[in-house]
Amino acid sequence: MRAEIGEQPEALRRTLDALLPRMSDVGLVARGTRQVLFIARGSSDNAAVYGRYLIETHAGRLATLAAPSIATTYRKRLDLSGVLAVAISQSGKTEEIVETLGWAADCGARTIAVTNGAGSPLADTAEVALITEAGDELAVPATKTYTTQLAALAVIGLGLGADVDLTQLRQVPEEVARVIEATESSEALPAITEELARVPGAVVSGRGMVFGTALELALKLKEACYLHAMGLSYADLLHGPIAVVDEDTPAILVAADSGPNLAGTIALAGRVTGAGARAYGVGGAALAEVCTHTLPGPDLPEWIAPLGLIVPGQLMVEALARRLGVDPDVPRGLNKVTQTG
Amino acid sequence: MRAEIGEQPEALRRTLDALLPRMSDVGLVARGTRQVLFIARGSSDNAAVYGRYLIETHAGRLATLAAPSIATTYRKRLDLSGVLAVAISQSGKTEEIVETLGWAADCGARTIAVTNGAGSPLADTAEVALITEAGDELAVPATKTYTTQLAALAVIGLGLGADVDLTQLRQVPEEVARVIEATESSEALPAITEELARVPGAVVSGRGMVFGTALELALKLKEACYLHAMGLSYADLLHGPIAVVDEDTPAILVAADSGPNLAGTIALAGRVTGAGARAYGVGGAALAEVCTHTLPGPDLPEWIAPLGLIVPGQLMVEALARRLGVDPDVPRGLNKVTQTG
Repeated sequence: MRAEIGEQPEALRRTLDALLPRMSDVGLVARGTRQVLFIARGSSDNAAVYGRYLIETHAGRLATLAAPSIATTYRKRLDLSGVLAVAISQSGKTEEIVETLGWAADCGARTIAVTNGAGSPLADTAEVALITEAGDELAVPATKTYTTQLAALAVIGLGLGADVDLTQLRQVPEEVARVIEATESSEALPAITEELARVPGAVVSGRGMVFGTALELALKLKEACYLHAMGLSYADLLHGPIAVVDEDTPAILVAADSGPNLAGTIALAGRVTGAGARAYGVGGAALAEVCTHTLPGPDLPEWIAPLGLIVPGQLMVEALARRLGVDPDVPRGLNKVTQTG
Repeated sequence: MRAEIGEQPEALRRTLDALLPRMSDVGLVARGTRQVLFIARGSSDNAAVYGRYLIETHAGRLATLAAPSIATTYRKRLDLSGVLAVAISQSGKTEEIVETLGWAADCGARTIAVTNGAGSPLADTAEVALITEAGDELAVPATKTYTTQLAALAVIGLGLGADVDLTQLRQVPEEVARVIEATESSEALPAITEELARVPGAVVSGRGMVFGTALELALKLKEACYLHAMGLSYADLLHGPIAVVDEDTPAILVAADSGPNLAGTIALAGRVTGAGARAYGVGGAALAEVCTHTLPGPDLPEWIAPLGLIVPGQLMVEALARRLGVDPDVPRGLNKVTQTG
């Protein structure tokens, strides 16, 4: 897992080189559609959460998440004309996702696949297949396949006409390399690792564009560290689960360095520490001033911050798993390709 | 909280009496729309998850969940023509939800509110306001406002032409009364309470129509019992978080007595106990044969099972909170009306 975290700058560079020229294919298949419907599970579902915020915020289209069981267990048809269905799967082999994308096409949707599996059933099912160039991923917890999925989603956003500066995407690989180095030399990393090793659970929260990052970090902490990590949006956290935060249940708060949600995240950190609990920041510039410990985030604009913001989280997961005596490459009970039929 | 759980049969009866005659209003406001977009937070969001499955499975329309921050913090416009926006809020006073419904109308959506707050800002904002007749709810954890929201959503499903037998809805109040009695006389209730009092966390899972029930039970366990309760769909659980289930982390599995997801839930229970962990069933007929302990569920068809299936969960939460020395009516850090601006 550690090696694959380090391969991300190169994987992202290759993926952007391969996919930026495909922007026009995205625009073509999207012609006549009005909205986006994501089809995904697990880490890919967390990538889709980024995709929905990116597209709704910058490309002006409704973008929501599908419930695959409508297709696979209830076997009901919906009218999906005007819908661009985007299925995301690392392997491209998860039958539930392949089947749901085929169902979406039968229901009238146009289709895109985002997958690391060239020639996979998912790639073959879609009208446009955006193949991420992550290379083979051997560790069970997804790292480079996840960040390259985010890069593919940024390309989809651009293909849909997002009002952002495309050239900023080119900074991502270098910035990810810098974040890896900064995290590994940060004193916060061993401090957070040591403290998390002694608690049974944690809340992980972020809002808007980085909500998917919070969900992905929570998923990784569950699957590789067996931590009771509860991923919640800032708003949902305040709707009840804030009660669970206490001296044995810290909050991990992720934020971009800019954007309209930074102030609220800083206020939330103050509320957590004010209640006597620990708050660990990931990114978020001034977040460091209110958190117990903070890992440095990427210096990227909010719309692509998620591509770098998960990286300190990945390193935290890897360090915590080793500290707990778990081999992060092969957590118990998991396979690389998950079938959920 | 216990008193309000007991008031649910009457609250449901009053709500159905008030709202079933409004089916035609739903049909009228939905004319010309093709899909449903839910706007909600917290328990109301879990109700919306039921609404989406009900409408997609039985009324043939795409039904998805909105990201309110697009309206309230990013302040972006989307084209929502052809969309029926359904906002759900117990109080009708949560500014974020009121603002997002107003935004949806500005973006071209038709609007419905589901709220217990007659004359509330949310009711005033919507074209059609479906007022639940739960009466005053004093305990912070929502119980009767939640189940009456589900009843209102069933009415919306019927107004959209769901292919179900309307008269089955009339069985719900009596069935909820029976479930309360059956749960309280069940030997499984004290057994599960005692075991949950000794663990730091649990996974709560269900699929399809009852996925929202699992999320709601997880939320209640977090907010009233401070348990690290992780609500996950069956499929997402298998995509990684199954690793977190162990001898100190039981799984609570909810299921209706029928429907295409029952078999998978039973298989999941077998996988959990086979791995040496505890599985507690809620409902799901044959689930009792594979689970460590099982609370009886309602004898209702799958499409309305969620209206009764949360009830044994509510009683479990109430009993566990008292066992842990928490006053379930006033958990720490929470207010009845949540503002998340």
